[in-house]
Amino acid sequence: MAARQRVVIIGGGFAGLSAARALGGGPFDVTLIDRRNFHLFQPLLYQVATGGLSPANISAPLRAIVKKQQNVNVLLAEVQHIDVAQQRVVLHEESVPYDVLIVATGSSHHYFGHPEWERWAPSLKTIEDATDIRRRVLLAFEAAEREPDVARRTAWLTFVIVGGGPTGIELAGAVAELARWTLQGNFRQFDPATARIILVEGASRVLPTYAPVLSDKAARALKQLKVEIHIDSMVTAIGETSVSVRKQDSELAIATRTVLWAAGVAASPLGKIVATATGANLDRVGRVIVEPDLTVPDHPGIFVIGDLAHIAGRDGQPLPGLAPVAMQQGHYVAQLLHRRATGRKTRPFRYFDRGTMATIGRAKAVADIRGFRFSGLLAWLSWLFIHLLFIIQFQSRVLILLQWAWNYTTRNAPARLITGREPFSYRQQEESATDTEGAPPA
Amino acid sequence: MAARQRVVIIGGGFAGLSAARALGGGPFDVTLIDRRNFHLFQPLLYQVATGGLSPANISAPLRAIVKKQQNVNVLLAEVQHIDVAQQRVVLHEESVPYDVLIVATGSSHHYFGHPEWERWAPSLKTIEDATDIRRRVLLAFEAAEREPDVARRTAWLTFVIVGGGPTGIELAGAVAELARWTLQGNFRQFDPATARIILVEGASRVLPTYAPVLSDKAARALKQLKVEIHIDSMVTAIGETSVSVRKQDSELAIATRTVLWAAGVAASPLGKIVATATGANLDRVGRVIVEPDLTVPDHPGIFVIGDLAHIAGRDGQPLPGLAPVAMQQGHYVAQLLHRRATGRKTRPFRYFDRGTMATIGRAKAVADIRGFRFSGLLAWLSWLFIHLLFIIQFQSRVLILLQWAWNYTTRNAPARLITGREPFSYRQQEESATDTEGAPPA
Repeated sequence: MAARQRVVIIGGGFAGLSAARALGGGPFDVTLIDRRNFHLFQPLLYQVATGGLSPANISAPLRAIVKKQQNVNVLLAEVQHIDVAQQRVVLHEESVPYDVLIVATGSSHHYFGHPEWERWAPSLKTIEDATDIRRRVLLAFEAAEREPDVARRTAWLTFVIVGGGPTGIELAGAVAELARWTLQGNFRQFDPATARIILVEGASRVLPTYAPVLSDKAARALKQLKVEIHIDSMVTAIGETSVSVRKQDSELAIATRTVLWAAGVAASPLGKIVATATGANLDRVGRVIVEPDLTVPDHPGIFVIGDLAHIAGRDGQPLPGLAPVAMQQGHYVAQLLHRRATGRKTRPFRYFDRGTMATIGRAKAVADIRGFRFSGLLAWLSWLFIHLLFIIQFQSRVLILLQWAWNYTTRNAPARLITGREPFSYRQQEESATDTEGAPPA
Repeated sequence: MAARQRVVIIGGGFAGLSAARALGGGPFDVTLIDRRNFHLFQPLLYQVATGGLSPANISAPLRAIVKKQQNVNVLLAEVQHIDVAQQRVVLHEESVPYDVLIVATGSSHHYFGHPEWERWAPSLKTIEDATDIRRRVLLAFEAAEREPDVARRTAWLTFVIVGGGPTGIELAGAVAELARWTLQGNFRQFDPATARIILVEGASRVLPTYAPVLSDKAARALKQLKVEIHIDSMVTAIGETSVSVRKQDSELAIATRTVLWAAGVAASPLGKIVATATGANLDRVGRVIVEPDLTVPDHPGIFVIGDLAHIAGRDGQPLPGLAPVAMQQGHYVAQLLHRRATGRKTRPFRYFDRGTMATIGRAKAVADIRGFRFSGLLAWLSWLFIHLLFIIQFQSRVLILLQWAWNYTTRNAPARLITGREPFSYRQQEESATDTEGAPPA
């Protein structure tokens, strides 16, 4: 019987949690460190941002998830640095020793060298981001109701989403549904269906990493919701009342009060901490370049998994930052540790691609499941089924299904609450942009 | 056909919303002003504070509620003052003219001349209060998990609730259930069931406004949940790490990090604005003393209703600040305006007391329905039925029922999220007390 190993996992997202769960029962004393007390089901965060679901619907307390695994200890803390020589993870007031370290702190968005844009164009990564975006979108309609000047009102009713990847098109679709259906009849001074929703994408099609046929289908579904799509377009400036977009050789100025950011990937700052401590290399966006077994080069006891890891897939491209990749990596590392503990041989990590999908509003989606590409209701039902399957608590599954059934039939979005501070002054709204939390988990 | 009247209602709580809904269809142009964009079902707020329900479960967007009443206009704004001579309600940047004004801005808690206590002992009135309390209670358990010193850990695991009215006993019961059942097995350094929950009440029994037999039943139910009850006890000091309680002649110091305030009533600041504008008298807690038809003396076009109004019931005592009183008053004023508009005679307001009830944890409650006093499961089922009946959206009713059914059978509280800011530093937690919103609605 091997001695018990102390495994420290930093980050309770898809990657870290999968590892923690798969280490149950083995000769491991696991410490799971996260800054938050809950696991967040990020793929549905855009539905919180648009009032369809509540934060608790897509969150599960970490302690509750692992409570039956007596060998897993949850610690609510922020990591300051890693002491590789002493094998300790240093927190604010204490440090935790490890034999094996698994770093899984994910990624956030980055603003292409313009951090000042974050103030006007929040991105969507945390529960607080989602309720902040919900607040901004709903307050824009409220401001429009009070605005007598037509041009200014139009600016309040113009929503620009930057980035045409899955998050961008899901957000654009959800905001469009909110305007076209949910808010119908809610205002007296204007028809919310007249709101403009504009999607800006730098590549030559939306969903640029998907198959072209799916990009076409997604674009068509968005156009049915009257989302205006600008492809081959780069944002060049974002301010309080407008966005500048360069499209080929022309420059387009859009008067808007609400810009949502769904572009760019920046690795968690833990990447840099790992690189400093171990000498590992980072890629262009700050991800740690790992070995085929997800270890840091020359450090067989330190793993980096999930969105923070840079590892090439079969096509030579780095694996995308998706929940299935993260979960498979978490599972892989746990299996590898089980095999090491029993002296068995280990194999390199291989991602099994079950497919990709994205949803565009009510009953519309596109899916690419191992080369079988489809769209429409069937894709949407697959999307729904797969998302429900991976939501961690059974209770949430049932409640989300019911909430969706209700939202679907009534076109309602019952969680459209403006919270966080008293919303009577629109000036306050803009000031609030400075407290937006853009930091990645743990 | 009478001319259309401009009716301005300040406050979208039970009173103001009942009035707005009952004014649909009549010769009225109604403007409903609130600082928030949603109606809040306050009787269930303690369940949000203890993680059983989500904010959206007990909130409904005001615009959605009145969207079919074309004569009702919702305005998200804060009232600055009332210009009685010009008949205008003055907001930040505009003013709204009225023929009839209905003020229904409710009440908040007051701290018996110690506003500095609010920092350490938040009260429960808004959604933000509830998520702040949820955050504090959950962080106390997290801090206990990290605290090696036994005495300090005990202080983190001691929860003091000040006030033994319905809100106080509901909170005490819910915190006790959280500790005794929900968090079971979640921690590795201590057993959450060992937490102390202490209820402090100034009168000689809990629920002092209820029949004595119900106070006894409630106290017994609380004791079954191992809540320690201190009657005849006054809080004399609240600090960061302790509460002082005077009980008869002795002084008791309780080491605690979490104090929740459920005592004292302070009328909304609008009461003073009404008094200044109209010359009306305020009672000791700042409520406006109104005529038998709920008008302000000498101002037949200005009504004050709900928790902000002081009007005597049949027993000569002022009517309590309860949702049924507020709803009946809102309905009454609307009927009175309908009668006035058609030249019919009006009658003074009469409160029809359907009964009072309070719940103490899972499947326990006390009820007093027109003199028929009962407790236990039957009272709890009545409580459940009546609360569901009065929740304004059908969708919420179904979801809350399902959420409760789930929570009841699993003893789970799935919404136990620590949100609002990164919780890794406990110092921050204390600083957060200064941003607590204690202000009443609208």
